[in-house]
Amino acid sequence: MVKSLLALVATITIAPLSAQNSPQTAAPLRPNAAAAEPAAEDWRDIPADEILLLQLKSGRQVVVRLAARLAPAHVNNIRKLAMARWWDGESVYRVQENWVAQWGDPTEKKPLPPEILARPPSEFEVAGVSPALRLSKPDSYASATGITADGWPIATDGKATWLTHCYGMVGVARDQLPDTGTGAELFTPIGQSARRLDRNYTVVGRVIEGMQHLSGLPRSDAPMGVYADAAERTGILWARLASQLPPDERPHFQYRATDNERYAAMIALREHPAPPTVATGLNVCDLPVAVRRRP
Amino acid sequence: MVKSLLALVATITIAPLSAQNSPQTAAPLRPNAAAAEPAAEDWRDIPADEILLLQLKSGRQVVVRLAARLAPAHVNNIRKLAMARWWDGESVYRVQENWVAQWGDPTEKKPLPPEILARPPSEFEVAGVSPALRLSKPDSYASATGITADGWPIATDGKATWLTHCYGMVGVARDQLPDTGTGAELFTPIGQSARRLDRNYTVVGRVIEGMQHLSGLPRSDAPMGVYADAAERTGILWARLASQLPPDERPHFQYRATDNERYAAMIALREHPAPPTVATGLNVCDLPVAVRRRP
Repeated sequence: MVKSLLALVATITIAPLSAQNSPQTAAPLRPNAAAAEPAAEDWRDIPADEILLLQLKSGRQVVVRLAARLAPAHVNNIRKLAMARWWDGESVYRVQENWVAQWGDPTEKKPLPPEILARPPSEFEVAGVSPALRLSKPDSYASATGITADGWPIATDGKATWLTHCYGMVGVARDQLPDTGTGAELFTPIGQSARRLDRNYTVVGRVIEGMQHLSGLPRSDAPMGVYADAAERTGILWARLASQLPPDERPHFQYRATDNERYAAMIALREHPAPPTVATGLNVCDLPVAVRRRP
Repeated sequence: MVKSLLALVATITIAPLSAQNSPQTAAPLRPNAAAAEPAAEDWRDIPADEILLLQLKSGRQVVVRLAARLAPAHVNNIRKLAMARWWDGESVYRVQENWVAQWGDPTEKKPLPPEILARPPSEFEVAGVSPALRLSKPDSYASATGITADGWPIATDGKATWLTHCYGMVGVARDQLPDTGTGAELFTPIGQSARRLDRNYTVVGRVIEGMQHLSGLPRSDAPMGVYADAAERTGILWARLASQLPPDERPHFQYRATDNERYAAMIALREHPAPPTVATGLNVCDLPVAVRRRP
């Protein structure tokens, strides 16, 4: 179901801004905070084969939600890599200041499982996807931005649509040629968003828990942020799909659906915050990651 | 000297995009890379009393450039705090995931030097400042953004102008009331930019060296990211203005002036990158921090 923000906001209770505002400013319409609360049915289960768990040797865990519908070829590879336990014993080997943390095999020599696509088609853009909710303003890199019904941040130039390289999104590292990324080497932006990679790298997911275990790692001074000394790497004990774990050990996650007036109200509140906050607007990369463990 | 990007670009040599582009796309004009190189005279000395050095107990150093002209009351306080050696022995006591690192006195009980303004006027917006160069597109939080002649990122809504809370900018922490920040407690965004703080917090500078020593610190799980255990804090050995150090120990920094066609050409190249990069545009927070140590 595709609705514009304005159409949705028109259906909900609104309250004018307080009288503190100068009379010459048109008062933006702010929904009541209660109207922005999710309903129980807004929380939808994320399938267990769309959750990738990275268990670090430090005992910490990073959880990635996979964009199975939006980057199917690469997510399929990632599932097979996890099933083959390919990342077990590998590492986070690159942490570049204000850029990315990257994990996989730093030697790029470890054989890949035969069942994966060695050269999957690039999935830099996503077909047949519209935002369930558009943000009010264009941003520096797109004519419109918004979020899919199932919670993925996207941008468009009116023709193509793509997943945005926001902080915490997970992309496929590759060599020069567009089809040289398999999904074995993955990265996530750890500083200012990496939007200049949009439409040139395949985005396969987002870190939904444990991002601090990647963003808080020591930066490397070596070229491209690749640790010069193997001892600096953060070891990966194992990586699994949640669906690989025994049922009683599986974590369960839910996303907040966005194609409803409650989410639209939440965005309206953020786009027109209450005083004393003055900044209006909302960048697609500042949209909250609305995911939780299933209660 | 205030010039628009278009006016500047019109004066420089341009080259059309390569013939690889589809013919129905209007080819953006890209300057030659050589036109974007700074001239020797573009590098201007930063005064020694606009450089704040934070020497951490770990032996690492963080260098902050102070926006003396744009936040004079708070920078004046910061200078006096450094002269009084107020931060010596204090710490980085707050590191909140995808938000900020903050330093000063976590108890907020340490007496402030009598010579500082205890309640300086808020400097959330900057008066009398125009961008020397405007970026082509508005962004999610402003009708126009750009950079001052001396390299500070700014945004405007057509009436007010303000410094933007980009990654690595330095802001003044405060309590609820707008005039409760003195400059003693400072923070810097360590994740996605913190633009929702724009016009509501005073920005006093930017980290120009050593940002990785703040961004790479372990995140706290405690409320607001304030370390629950004092042992988690990163100690500050001393903080000084460069001008306080003996002349032969002072580091010297330079910024790249932006009010010239070379800088405009650099921006034009980034707004219209060469293939295979597809993303066009440039966010004000992705402008390069064009600062160097004086050769």
